[in-house]
Amino acid sequence: MKTYRKELWFETRRRREFLNVTPEVERCLAESGIREGLALVNAMHITASVFINDDEPGLHGDLEAWLERLAPEKPHAQYAHNTGEDNADAHLKRTVMGREVVVAVTGGRLDFGPWEQIFYGEFDGRRRKRVLVKIIGE
Amino acid sequence: MKTYRKELWFETRRRREFLNVTPEVERCLAESGIREGLALVNAMHITASVFINDDEPGLHGDLEAWLERLAPEKPHAQYAHNTGEDNADAHLKRTVMGREVVVAVTGGRLDFGPWEQIFYGEFDGRRRKRVLVKIIGE
Amino acid sequence: MKTYRKELWFETRRRREFLNVTPEVERCLAESGIREGLALVNAMHITASVFINDDEPGLHGDLEAWLERLAPEKPHAQYAHNTGEDNADAHLKRTVMGREVVVAVTGGRLDFGPWEQIFYGEFDGRRRKRVLVKIIGE
Repeated sequence: MKTYRKELWFETRRRREFLNVTPEVERCLAESGIREGLALVNAMHITASVFINDDEPGLHGDLEAWLERLAPEKPHAQYAHNTGEDNADAHLKRTVMGREVVVAVTGGRLDFGPWEQIFYGEFDGRRRKRVLVKIIGE
Repeated sequence: MKTYRKELWFETRRRREFLNVTPEVERCLAESGIREGLALVNAMHITASVFINDDEPGLHGDLEAWLERLAPEKPHAQYAHNTGEDNADAHLKRTVMGREVVVAVTGGRLDFGPWEQIFYGEFDGRRRKRVLVKIIGE
Repeated sequence: MKTYRKELWFETRRRREFLNVTPEVERCLAESGIREGLALVNAMHITASVFINDDEPGLHGDLEAWLERLAPEKPHAQYAHNTGEDNADAHLKRTVMGREVVVAVTGGRLDFGPWEQIFYGEFDGRRRKRVLVKIIGE
């Protein structure tokens, strides 16, 4: 069995942002030399997500508006967590979007359907944060 | 290490539908010959889910009503994604329900609690779509 | 390849409760002797979750209030599932919070960011329920 590990670092300019990280994960997979197995990609921070969806700006706007409706950022004081912090909403938004994805590796490639792309979902950005890529297989 | 891969194809008659795919996944596992490991089951489409819950029709009706409240289909024009498309709500519903499940394989069986069943959750159906089963182990 | 399996049992005093199970999972990992691989931790019941977030009581209160807003317990009769049962809301809450987490194992440790902790999320407690820990690797 082979294993591979890499941290990807991101710093978004805005508080909330979606970044397509598929190319970086594909580079990790190529570097790993693994052809059959599973790839785990997860946010290492609890106010960020890794998720799979469409790379379509309209949809990303819809996701932003929808998450803000389900778990509004403001007023900050509505959350017990926000004493000295202001990011309780980011914890909730990340919960909706998920921490991680597990992707099949087949023939040395991410085994994806036609529109699947991996995104880093940042909900409390403007600082350096990490995503972990761990691949196991052979 | 052994690996196994199979695509399961579905075409629902209704736009939204839940299908119990546990028997198909069990058949994959038997075919794989793997006795200890992990099974990944994921939607290959971004408007569908794979999730684990109860096979109880009342609950499935509750899930349908609840998802429709959290992310209503109509009016279609409420979503920026719906220009030429009408399935933005399906992307959001699938986000709530999740893309994938990872199930332990123990002694050649899906290592489940008493009521766990795997479902394909379709949110934009009436066309052929796929689920990926990838099993690794030995 | 090595594999390891253990069931963790919990019985909460309240209907809903969050328990930090990171130490138990770390003990499982030590017991497994696995140094590189993947650890799956999942609820074996469909009215409970395993999730990763912050061990901060204010946030846990926010999560409780937020889940109760997204999927209120009462009136019980609002759910079709609640005929002879009263836990439909628990199925929905668990859906938001997720069934499972997959954690990278690196150098014999759970490969976590600074604040990541694993929680058992109980939404229909006051009875004995189980979490499965399955670790594969070498």
